[in-house]
Amino acid sequence: MGPHPAVAAIRLAVRRVLHDVLTDLTDRPAGHSPTPSGGTPAAAAATPPLVLVACSGGADSMALASALAFEAPKLGIRAGGITVDHGLQAGSDLRAAEVVTRMTALRLDPVESVSVRVGRDGGPEAAARDARYAALDEAADRLGAAAVLLGHTRDDQAETVLLGLARGSGIRSLSGMAEVSGGPGRSHRYRRPFLQIDRQTARKACMVQSLPVWDDPHNIDPAYTRSRLRHEGLPALEKALGKGVVEALARTAQLSRDDADALDSWAAEAETGVRDEDGKLECAKLYALPPAVRRRVLRRAVVAAGSPAGSLFARHIEEVDRLITGWRGQGAINLPGRVEAQRQGGRLVIRQG
Amino acid sequence: MGPHPAVAAIRLAVRRVLHDVLTDLTDRPAGHSPTPSGGTPAAAAATPPLVLVACSGGADSMALASALAFEAPKLGIRAGGITVDHGLQAGSDLRAAEVVTRMTALRLDPVESVSVRVGRDGGPEAAARDARYAALDEAADRLGAAAVLLGHTRDDQAETVLLGLARGSGIRSLSGMAEVSGGPGRSHRYRRPFLQIDRQTARKACMVQSLPVWDDPHNIDPAYTRSRLRHEGLPALEKALGKGVVEALARTAQLSRDDADALDSWAAEAETGVRDEDGKLECAKLYALPPAVRRRVLRRAVVAAGSPAGSLFARHIEEVDRLITGWRGQGAINLPGRVEAQRQGGRLVIRQG
Repeated sequence: MGPHPAVAAIRLAVRRVLHDVLTDLTDRPAGHSPTPSGGTPAAAAATPPLVLVACSGGADSMALASALAFEAPKLGIRAGGITVDHGLQAGSDLRAAEVVTRMTALRLDPVESVSVRVGRDGGPEAAARDARYAALDEAADRLGAAAVLLGHTRDDQAETVLLGLARGSGIRSLSGMAEVSGGPGRSHRYRRPFLQIDRQTARKACMVQSLPVWDDPHNIDPAYTRSRLRHEGLPALEKALGKGVVEALARTAQLSRDDADALDSWAAEAETGVRDEDGKLECAKLYALPPAVRRRVLRRAVVAAGSPAGSLFARHIEEVDRLITGWRGQGAINLPGRVEAQRQGGRLVIRQG
Repeated sequence: MGPHPAVAAIRLAVRRVLHDVLTDLTDRPAGHSPTPSGGTPAAAAATPPLVLVACSGGADSMALASALAFEAPKLGIRAGGITVDHGLQAGSDLRAAEVVTRMTALRLDPVESVSVRVGRDGGPEAAARDARYAALDEAADRLGAAAVLLGHTRDDQAETVLLGLARGSGIRSLSGMAEVSGGPGRSHRYRRPFLQIDRQTARKACMVQSLPVWDDPHNIDPAYTRSRLRHEGLPALEKALGKGVVEALARTAQLSRDDADALDSWAAEAETGVRDEDGKLECAKLYALPPAVRRRVLRRAVVAAGSPAGSLFARHIEEVDRLITGWRGQGAINLPGRVEAQRQGGRLVIRQG
């Protein structure tokens, strides 16, 4: 008799990602971690590669930890785990110690608890996230990990899409979380094997494996936008639109990501064609571009001039766009980061003041 | 003292659209309706152009009718109104007669009630919509109208985006309703002046002008998806995400529409480049395209082979795409409309069986 379907599902998802990690190690020049010497996992070099799981002790990441512990040895991979103590609640250090114990019980090795100080930038959720990724980056670098697995599920993805939708800033913000992501030079560090797995399956997998899980009180705290979305927004939307909403949102994320990538590449290519010999943007050539491409070219130019991407909203770019499409002698337009855009003699001049 | 801000807002929105209609009439070869002889509205020809409003008697379309009645004469435009009797409720004929009376009181002329028979295709909402547009098309043709104004508000747009999101079929379905649309040969017939106006403003404009309005019981009938969305889904989403959700959804619609248009044009252009001399799709060339463009090329090819666009979902195209990106000797793929896709000797063959 095989494993419970929920356990089979999470293991399959992790197995696929571990295969990708090994393929990547074979294809790429060796980095921190050793590269398998042959094409097959079994032919891995003396020190096998290390894959870490980021584990909060919640159902999603405990399920992920269990699947990693089961699959990694079969592929000649070492499996380790990191839990981040955000220090936001009394006793969080004890909780972190308990998660370490549970990961050790799964035979993950190395296992670590990392304490962080959460700042305030961008609100409580963003600040906690920034601190968490910084800690995971540091641990992955120090331990020479080939990848860090994150337990985000399809439900998390659906919530992320809705959060992006609420920003109203276009399809890039609808594209949710990537299956593979990472910082500069580590573009494949983070992997999300569960983006196609629903939260219910992860929870079930923990249950049938008798894994204790911990429910983060933040997840049900209505002070957090994501928590309100999870417990009120999404259920109401499902009631109105049907049970397929979460899946539809997750599919929207993938399609939007591909669309946004394609349009970004178009804009990057178009940008060189709309500059004169002095490198100035020519309004007539910008005008001839499709609006979606033109606005991306403008956004790139404004960011290149020093405007912080995170402070630059669709309405800013629309205003710059009107210098091209609705020219009636407007003055200079002020943009975040003391950047100014103005039209001069058929050219668009964008510079920091 | 000027008009109430709500009245000023709806009039401005209609005035802008009427200007666009006049510009269009001047630019295009003369159709059914007479073209103004000069460039300015006042210089309109002997028989002034006719613009109709589609009016249900609800607040949105009554506000629209009132603004059209006010603005049209100033621009040398005749203003008329059509109400559609869907015959779905007892007494709907009396209601339609009352809407005719109200439109006549606004000095719209001509004013008509048109009865339709609503079929069952695609569910009650789609069937009613199809019957309604067919009747409006017929009336506009018969009366030689230059345009038909529709009262969809920003709130309607937000609901449409969420309905599209629930399909999970990509950014085209997120692009909501267009400001300007129409059937073949009448691409500018329908205009939606209120897509930036919220429902509350339309209602307020009726109130301060002492216009009686009628609340369609369908709008609060939970049997209708849109009604559930309006009264439960969207309010819950606003509670979770904040009051800006409706505006964000409407902005998403516009951005998605532009993005989808740009990608469609890219796909149309790319399609010619990926065919061999016999017109067959070359898998290697398809593989080199960005996924977002490749999937659109594939969709175009499948539709061109006879698959009905409305039955073709993202998952169908994904399966065809795997013949290119995940080739492992798969057999022919069956698609809606008895269309088959298969890979043969590095070519993709798509044909109707």
